[in-house]
Parts: sequence; structure tokens; C-alpha cells
Amino acid sequence: MTLTVLLAAGHGVFEEYDAPLRAAFAAQGLDAALVTDAAPESVDYIVYAPSSPVQDFAPFTRCRAVLSLWAGVERIVANPTLTQPLARMVDPSLTQGMVEYVTGHVLRYHLGLDRPASKWAPLVPPLAQDRRVGFLGLGELGRACAQALVALGFDVAGWSRSPRAVAGIACHHGADGLRKVLQCSEILVTLLPDTPATANILNAQTLAQLPRGARIINPGRGTLVEDAALLAALDTGQIAAATLDVFRTEPLPAEHPYWAHPSVTVTPHIAAATRPDTASAVIAANIARVQAGQPLLHEVSRSAGY
Amino acid sequence: MTLTVLLAAGHGVFEEYDAPLRAAFAAQGLDAALVTDAAPESVDYIVYAPSSPVQDFAPFTRCRAVLSLWAGVERIVANPTLTQPLARMVDPSLTQGMVEYVTGHVLRYHLGLDRPASKWAPLVPPLAQDRRVGFLGLGELGRACAQALVALGFDVAGWSRSPRAVAGIACHHGADGLRKVLQCSEILVTLLPDTPATANILNAQTLAQLPRGARIINPGRGTLVEDAALLAALDTGQIAAATLDVFRTEPLPAEHPYWAHPSVTVTPHIAAATRPDTASAVIAANIARVQAGQPLLHEVSRSAGY
Ligand SMILES: NC(=O)c1ccc[n+]([C@@H]2O[C@H](COP(=O)([O-])OP(=O)(O)OC[C@H]3O[C@@H](n4cnc5c(N)ncnc54)[C@H](OP(=O)(O)O)[C@@H]3O)[C@@H](O)[C@H]2O)c1
Ligand SMILES: NC(=O)c1ccc[n+]([C@@H]2O[C@H](COP(=O)([O-])OP(=O)(O)OC[C@H]3O[C@@H](n4cnc5c(N)ncnc54)[C@H](OP(=O)(O)O)[C@@H]3O)[C@@H](O)[C@H]2O)c1
Repeated sequence: MTLTVLLAAGHGVFEEYDAPLRAAFAAQGLDAALVTDAAPESVDYIVYAPSSPVQDFAPFTRCRAVLSLWAGVERIVANPTLTQPLARMVDPSLTQGMVEYVTGHVLRYHLGLDRPASKWAPLVPPLAQDRRVGFLGLGELGRACAQALVALGFDVAGWSRSPRAVAGIACHHGADGLRKVLQCSEILVTLLPDTPATANILNAQTLAQLPRGARIINPGRGTLVEDAALLAALDTGQIAAATLDVFRTEPLPAEHPYWAHPSVTVTPHIAAATRPDTASAVIAANIARVQAGQPLLHEVSRSAGY
Repeated sequence: MTLTVLLAAGHGVFEEYDAPLRAAFAAQGLDAALVTDAAPESVDYIVYAPSSPVQDFAPFTRCRAVLSLWAGVERIVANPTLTQPLARMVDPSLTQGMVEYVTGHVLRYHLGLDRPASKWAPLVPPLAQDRRVGFLGLGELGRACAQALVALGFDVAGWSRSPRAVAGIACHHGADGLRKVLQCSEILVTLLPDTPATANILNAQTLAQLPRGARIINPGRGTLVEDAALLAALDTGQIAAATLDVFRTEPLPAEHPYWAHPSVTVTPHIAAATRPDTASAVIAANIARVQAGQPLLHEVSRSAGY
């Protein structure tokens, strides 16, 4: 029987995903019809982006899973009508993009690429082995980025909610672990999800625990940073510089002080993009798993919020 | 019998190398006296930097090898009085520094880090797999840098004098190979030694073979680049940008057009520094090899010039 897959997403997403999703279903041998509109009780799977008008999931009584096109699920996870299993996006291209972004910005700070020489004054930067980089978040993305930096020789520590073991990385967790990672992070990368527990995790108190002159790279979520505290820490020099890809309000308003701040680099939520071909393959494979009676991959914990 | 090792180098080098070399000799079990002055016929090995006043090697009749503190040996290789075997510097720290420098500048160009957003205009860069990077020179340094970029996912090609095989890299050699590598290099890294055969290898003709808008990173030697041709190619847009660490005259004179050129980044010969502790270990190990009757490592070919 033909499966009905509803693409629930705002304007433009269908044009991007129509062909790749159909191709991916075919590659998985799935007999599936991709639709943008359907009687809710006829829908087998929902492919979801937060721009979708669909906000009430209760009528989708037959739906076996909701598959997010986004890695961050903060805009759907707390929806009380959502009783179906929810999978977040884990896309190899998205991970690859994040690795390039984080490695590039870490090397930029490490090598001092923002301050090109204006006269001949040789100053050799320390080697990566003498540069301590910390990660808040050791999930799909944090882990991949941390491992790329370990491969380049950096001294890397990381922090997660549950205990983790990642080769070559000093892993910590819990409140005590957070302080340990902050204390040794000359460059701090935040790759945490937006949940009630991570809101404002970079605040006056935690920023003060970083070594003086630390640099921050935040491609996680805008809610992780208490903006006023970061601006204050930049002004005292406690934080030397910040590169921010995500914000509480996106697009970042033109009058926001981040735009004009000489030590802040704004990137417009481009650290890592989900790419339709690879993301479609991931979604089709996940649907095929459920159809074959295997557990859904990348399922979101509704209680943890990610 | 105690070996006599002459440190032939200009001002300041002895202070830097005295303790590390002595420690490295001890670690190798070498009974060696490090001196800065000695009767030439009493000297067993010379540790050499181009700043040295020693220019006539003929009187060093007992000397079994000259060990360069520099990776580039263009200032000694053609010395007709030098009949002793010459080893160039291959230092793991120097290689590591070069890998960080090249990876950082390649990612800087790849991700467009020089042009931070001044408004919200999301533009996702291509993934590394779709970015073609070429290396002229696949020696100790070129190989290590190329491999680091392959590990990050870049599409890498390289060129050397003799045929080479490096995992993950499209390897070419000879005149035909040079054209092939140039044609596919959106970012070109030059890590060739300064020899008669490599002089002006980047000239009007070869720069024109690069894709329009290519970027150049030269941490090799200043003589590789015909400066007037590069400046002309920058002005037409054939070359979009260049990062140069090495120059025909160093320090680069204050009036040189590279300093003020908006598309040129000058770094003051800091891409990779030889570090006294690791370099001393390499030198001591090489002396120990010769003392044990094994062949000298990293021996320079006097005919090839590197
Ligand atoms: N800027 C962009 O373009 C972009 C693109 C994609 C994603 N993102 C963001 O990146 C985030 C991370 O993605 P991911 O795929 O790596 O997610 P993930 O695999 O779910 O990993 C999340 C990590 O955060 C840790 N964590 C969560 N809550 C925590 C808490 N309260 N205390 C300590 N650690 C906590 C988790 O700990 P455990 O390991 O113990 O579970 C895990 O290590 C996403 O949520 C999204 O916001 C941004
Ligand atoms: N900026 C800095 O801080 C810094 C620091 C250290 C070194 N350097 C420069 O980097 C250079 C490379 O160092 P390395 O240790 O990698 O040297 P290497 O191991 O001797 O490698 C040299 C590479 O260049 C190739 N080559 C030489 N002549 C060639 C020609 N005529 N045509 C094509 N290929 C040619 C060699 O080809 P084969 O493989 O066929 O031999 C080899 O692949 C040094 O000579 C030095 O000038 C700069």
C-alpha cells in the first residue's frame, strides 16, 4: 500500500525537497506519495520544518513518526499535541558543514587571522597542542568538531549532560564538569540544543570562569547566551572576541549592538545547512527502518527537550 | 672520544639552542661538546644556520655532516666549498606549524572569513568536497598539509618533481602535471624549495592557467612568485587574493606594494618555526645515526638543490 508522506513546511521547502525526497524514497524501495496537503487521518509520516502552518498534531492519528528537517527541535518538542515519535535531523552534510565552520573559526582565533601584520614583526603563534579548546555539547555536531580539532593537534575538552567518552578529548559532565571545561577553554564552542536547562548557560557567572581573553564561538542557539552579559564581558576584555551564528531573534535586528561591535563576528545562521539530497536520504532511510519494524533513529527525548 | 659539534649560526642562536642541543645529545647517549668556535680540523659535525659567518667549509676536513637548522637550504646548497653531506631540517613541530597555517588560511578563503557579514544575507559556502585545492610541492610539508585538508574533506591535487603517490590526493608531476594541477586549483598552496628550476614558477603564464578568481597561499619561498605578474593578476581579478609568508627581500620593505594591497595578506615569515627542542632532538638523532654507520636522514641532493 502506498504510504502518504506529508511535507509540512513553509513556502519554498517543497520546491527544494520534492525531487530529492522522491528519489530517496525510490532508492529505499519505499512506495510513498509525497504531498503537501492531505486528510490528517490518511498521513503515515510527517516531514516537518518549523515554518509549517501545521501546529496541531492530534488529528494525525495514523502518523507513525514526525521527521524534523532541522537539527534543533526547540520549536516543536514542547508541542503538547505531538504524541507521535519525533526524529531530529542528523545529516552528514550538515555535520560536515559544522566541522568546517568550527575548525575555520577556531584556527582564525588560534592563528590571529583577524589581525594581519601591517609591518614586519615576526610573532609565531603557539602550536595547537598548546591551545585549549572547550566544547559545551558533545552530540553529533560537538563530537565531530571536537574530533576534527583533535586530529589537528588541539588540546580539547568537552561537556555533556550524561557521561561521555570520546577518544582524545577530556570529557566532563554535570555542574562540576562545566566549571572544569570553562576554566581551561581559551576558545569555547557552544553546540548545545535550546532547552530549559541550557538557556543563558553563558551568563555573567560562567563567562567569568573562562580564562581572561577567551574567545567564544556559538553556532548552537541564541538562547545559550545572555547577550547583555556577553557584551559586558567583551567590554571588560574578559572575553576577547565572539563569533555568533545564532540569535534570539533571527534575522538579527539591524540595530542590535552585535553588528557594530568590533570584537563580534556575526554570521547569519549559516554555520551548517541541511542539504536536501543528503537530508532526504536520511529521512527515507529512517522511514524504511520504521516500516521494517526497527526503532526510529535520532529520536528526540521529549523530557530532555532534545 | 668526545665529538666536537660546531654551532655555526649568527647572533642569538646559541642562547636558544645551547641547552636543548646538550639535552638532546645526552638523550641519544652522545658524548658531544657543543662549541661556537673550534679549530676547523677538530670539528666532527656542523649545526648550521645561514646567519653564520662560516662560508668556507674546506678546512673542516674531519666533518662528517652539516646539519641545517633551516628546512630551506638555498643559502648553502650551492656553496662550492661544501663537500660534506648536508641534511636539511625536518622537524615535527615545524611541520605541525605549517599544517596549522595552511589549514587556517585555506579555511579562511574557503569560508570567506575575510568578508564578515554586515547584514543578514544567508549564503552557505560550498562543502570542502566541492572545493579544489592544489599543492605545488609534495614534500614533508606539502604532503602533511595536503593530508590534513583531505581529512577535512577537501578535493586535493598535488605536484612534485618525481612521481609520488599520496593517499587521497590526485598526484601529478612534470610540465604536463603542473598545468593539470593549476587548472583545478581554486586555492593554490606553494610549498616548493627555492631552486633554479622553481624560480618564478608563478608567472603571468602559469597564473593565467588557474581558474579565474583563484587564491594563492605561498609559505614556500619568495622566489617562486614573479611579483609583478602576481600584482597584475590581482588587479585584473584573475587572482582574487594572495597570502604571502615569504619574499625575495625579508623583511619585506615598507614601500613594497604587497603591504598596502587590499587583496594581499602579508605574514612575516612565521608560517612555521623550527622549535629548538624538537629540532635539537632531530639533529641529535641524525648524528647518532651517522655515528652508528647508518645513512644520514633528510640529505640534500646537491644537484637537485633541495
Ligand atoms: N547554526 C547552525 O547552522 C546549526 C545547525 C544545526 C544544529 N545547530 C544546533 O546545534 C545543536 C546541537 O546539535 P547536535 O546534532 O550535536 O545535537 P545532539 O546530538 O542532540 O547533542 C546535544 C549535546 O548537548 C548536550 N546537552 C544537552 N543538554 C545539556 C545540558 N542541560 N547540560 C549539558 N549538556 C547538554 C548533550 O548531552 P548528552 O550527550 O549527554 O545527551 C549532547 O552532548 C542543535 O540543537 C542546534 O541547536 C545549529
Ligand atoms: N614559511 C616558512 O615558515 C617555511 C618553513 C619551512 C620551510 N619552508 C619552505 O618550504 C619548502 C618545502 O619544504 P619541505 O620540507 O616540504 O621540502 P621537501 O620535503 O624537500 O619537498 C619539496 C617538494 O617540492 C618538490 N619539488 C622540488 N623541485 C621541484 C620542481 N622543480 N618541480 C616540481 N616539484 C619540485 C619536491 O618534489 P619531489 O617530491 O619529487 O622531490 C617535493 O615534493 C622549503 O624548501 C622551504 O623553502 C618555509
